[in-house]
Amino acid sequence: MTTTMGSAAATGVPGILGRARDLVQPALRKAVARLDESSRAQSAYHLGWTDRDGVPAAGNGGKAVRSALAVVSAQAAGAAVETGVPGAVAVELVHNFSLVHDDLMDGDTERRHRATVWSLWGAPSAILTGDAMLALALEVVLDSGSPHTVPAARLLTETTRRLIEGQALDIAFEERDDVAVAECVAMAGGKTGALLSASAAIGAVLAGAGQEVVSALTVFGEEIGLAFQLVDDVLGIWGDPAVTGKPVYSDLHAGKKSLPVTYATTHGGAPGRELAEWLAAPEPSDEAELARVAALVAAAGGREWAVAEAAHRLAAAEQALAPIPAGPRADLIDIARFIVHREA
Amino acid sequence: MTTTMGSAAATGVPGILGRARDLVQPALRKAVARLDESSRAQSAYHLGWTDRDGVPAAGNGGKAVRSALAVVSAQAAGAAVETGVPGAVAVELVHNFSLVHDDLMDGDTERRHRATVWSLWGAPSAILTGDAMLALALEVVLDSGSPHTVPAARLLTETTRRLIEGQALDIAFEERDDVAVAECVAMAGGKTGALLSASAAIGAVLAGAGQEVVSALTVFGEEIGLAFQLVDDVLGIWGDPAVTGKPVYSDLHAGKKSLPVTYATTHGGAPGRELAEWLAAPEPSDEAELARVAALVAAAGGREWAVAEAAHRLAAAEQALAPIPAGPRADLIDIARFIVHREA
Repeated sequence: MTTTMGSAAATGVPGILGRARDLVQPALRKAVARLDESSRAQSAYHLGWTDRDGVPAAGNGGKAVRSALAVVSAQAAGAAVETGVPGAVAVELVHNFSLVHDDLMDGDTERRHRATVWSLWGAPSAILTGDAMLALALEVVLDSGSPHTVPAARLLTETTRRLIEGQALDIAFEERDDVAVAECVAMAGGKTGALLSASAAIGAVLAGAGQEVVSALTVFGEEIGLAFQLVDDVLGIWGDPAVTGKPVYSDLHAGKKSLPVTYATTHGGAPGRELAEWLAAPEPSDEAELARVAALVAAAGGREWAVAEAAHRLAAAEQALAPIPAGPRADLIDIARFIVHREA
Repeated sequence: MTTTMGSAAATGVPGILGRARDLVQPALRKAVARLDESSRAQSAYHLGWTDRDGVPAAGNGGKAVRSALAVVSAQAAGAAVETGVPGAVAVELVHNFSLVHDDLMDGDTERRHRATVWSLWGAPSAILTGDAMLALALEVVLDSGSPHTVPAARLLTETTRRLIEGQALDIAFEERDDVAVAECVAMAGGKTGALLSASAAIGAVLAGAGQEVVSALTVFGEEIGLAFQLVDDVLGIWGDPAVTGKPVYSDLHAGKKSLPVTYATTHGGAPGRELAEWLAAPEPSDEAELARVAALVAAAGGREWAVAEAAHRLAAAEQALAPIPAGPRADLIDIARFIVHREA
């Protein structure tokens, strides 16, 4: 049976995401069930399916926008949504592998208002669980039965390399005082653009789509990745902790060279220079001090630039979809706007 | 041009390993060159190609028995050794991904008489470098151009899952006082058997070999993996630090439930019980105390059992090769004996 995304009862993005989740969740759970006992328990917890004691949780495991992109991606190539499901499972697993490892690397003890895997089970277990999710992502695509399995799996390995490169740059930037906006954009392209791009393209790749369709989806995903990161960076400074699940001013507290901060230090005149000096020698900061620094980023134009740049990227993403049929194109645009127009 | 393993000037195992290394090294270096700057530098160091400052080193990068198994595996299926090269590169990368992560998980600061990656570049970098090697391993096989790419890549993902399961069990056993020999064998099967088994089979899989040949090679590799682990565990207690590169009695110092230790505590009468009591409440131990504990393992029959069991496993490995043509069979047996008959 072929399910058509966007045609059932619920309308708009909640409908698209809900139907994608209904389609992808059983396959994702089946895949995770293959893991060793320890990785399985930690993955189920991380994905929001259980509490830390393994008791099933009420949550539905997050918005799963990457899954939704992957199944709509198959439709964009004229195939059934089911064709995109192994790709959807794989991109969710790659995403969550990177989150489990990133939380450990960054020393974050909370994610989505819950204790992180490493903080509950220790660093060695978190390393293994992430490794297991990465290998499983590839395995799910290899088991897809699609005649286009090899290019789809190849897309995942290349995406993983870009993810890792983005994270490595992020770590390297912490030690540097001279990061340029272009370098920061390249880093964000790796950390966020690569996987959203792969999510938007993998369904079409599994469906054997032509180069024009795959390229359109690739560019679309890359651009919404950058738009997402710009918005995320704004939220990392000015977002409501109750919504973001992170402490107020968390990115400033961590001294992150995020996109708005980098724009501010390199294009922001006097307040930008004051910000750069603070970043070069940050002192232990209370909330009042961090509020002052956040005001410097805004005064230097960092917030305004990031919001405008996110809008440009979103427009570019939508334009890239010209070769895609109207139905899936509308769904992709809805998902893109949903990702970018969060609480920024 | 087709190179035939075992027919050139150098004879015996050094000849087989040397020719495999000559064949595989260029492809391995080309693959590693694809990684991001940080992962590339750390991988080159870890593989022994450079020192910590990136200066080329004189070493040839280790024995590379897994590479040798993979290329002879292709010959075992009647194919050219070249057919096995992408598989050889992949198993080396999976092996080294697991070493980089294991060193971090175990907190080991030295490997092969050199500082470990995490001890030089920090835990976050070591996590990323290992992740990058794992993704690259799959990528190399996906790029092989073989019509049998999917089953070969699938063998790697399953092997990685077993590796992770073995490591997770190893960690879990540290907290337990009741590990049975069968559990310990299952753990060793994951940690060591899985990847040697994949190494011995992947060339044949890439060559499209039939089930009988693939099964024979799989069993062969699994058995030499266990034989290797038994010998390694004996060396971990009684090996010469100058040869093993580890401190004397290192596994006892770490309280490892290795195979000889587990046999001793579960089958070793009075000395075995004394050993179990010591393991349950290990005190800070000087070398004299560790020598006394090592003597308990031997008195409980742990050393003798491990050496005999390694010989049984080696014999079973050789028997499994009955369906393999005489030439590659002889090479595989030579490699197996070389792996198992180290300085035990």
